[in-house]
Amino acid sequence: MRLSRKSDYALRAVMHFAGLPKGKLASIGEVAKAQSIPREFLAKILKDLTWAELLLSFQGVTGGYRLAKDAKSITFFDVIEAMDGQIYLNLCCEDKHECSHSKGCPMRDFWTKEQDHYLKSLKKANFAKYKSK
Amino acid sequence: MRLSRKSDYALRAVMHFAGLPKGKLASIGEVAKAQSIPREFLAKILKDLTWAELLLSFQGVTGGYRLAKDAKSITFFDVIEAMDGQIYLNLCCEDKHECSHSKGCPMRDFWTKEQDHYLKSLKKANFAKYKSK
Repeated sequence: MRLSRKSDYALRAVMHFAGLPKGKLASIGEVAKAQSIPREFLAKILKDLTWAELLLSFQGVTGGYRLAKDAKSITFFDVIEAMDGQIYLNLCCEDKHECSHSKGCPMRDFWTKEQDHYLKSLKKANFAKYKSK
Repeated sequence: MRLSRKSDYALRAVMHFAGLPKGKLASIGEVAKAQSIPREFLAKILKDLTWAELLLSFQGVTGGYRLAKDAKSITFFDVIEAMDGQIYLNLCCEDKHECSHSKGCPMRDFWTKEQDHYLKSLKKANFAKYKSK
C-alpha cells in the first residue's frame, strides 16, 4: 500500500533539481547530502531518471544532473512510474491482471474509483509546485 | 503502493461472510473455493480476523466462521489494518516515522492530504455495501 523507498527518494531528488537555479547542475554527492539519500542508491535512481528522460546527465569534473524539461511538466506520476512501473492500489487495477472474480466483484468499483482519484492527484502534482527551497 | 495480497484476500473473505444469511456459518473450504483463495493462506487470514474480533470461530464438525458484528460496522479500514498494521501511502505518514526532512518538506502536505482521503474512503467502505451476492 505504501510508496517504495526508491520512489520516495526519486521524488526528493527531482524536488531538489527543481529547486536549483535554471541551468545549474547538481552532483550525486550534493543531492545525496541535501536529501539524506544513500549515495549508491541515489546513483542508481538518477540513472533511471535519466533513462526515463526526466533528467539530463553531464559527464566530466564539472558535470552533474539537471531536469530534462520544465519542472512544471514533470509530475509525481512520471517519477513514480519511472521507478516502479505501473501504479496501482490493488492488483485488480493492474492492466494485465485478470481476476476470475472481476465480473460482478462488489469491490471492483471501490478500487477503480480510488485508483482514479490517486492517479489524478499524482498527475496534478508537478515540480514547479513541489520543489526544494 | 499496492494493497498486500493478504489484505485483498481478507477483504474478499469478509465480503463472503457478509453475503451469508444472518447467523449462517461458512467453513474455510467453502470460502476458499468461492473466493479462489489458497486454503492454507486463508486459514491464517481467518485466524487473524478472529483475533482482531472481526470474525467469530466455532469449533466442531458443524463449525465454521461468521462475522463477529453487523456487516455495516466492519470497514475496509478495519480489515486492512488487522492484516497489515498501520495503513499509510508514504513512509512520512507513518505515526512512528521521524523524517529529518519533514519540517518544510514540500511534499509532506501532498502525502498528508492523499493519506487523509484514502483513510476516509477505507473507513466509509463497509461490508453492508460490499458483500458477495
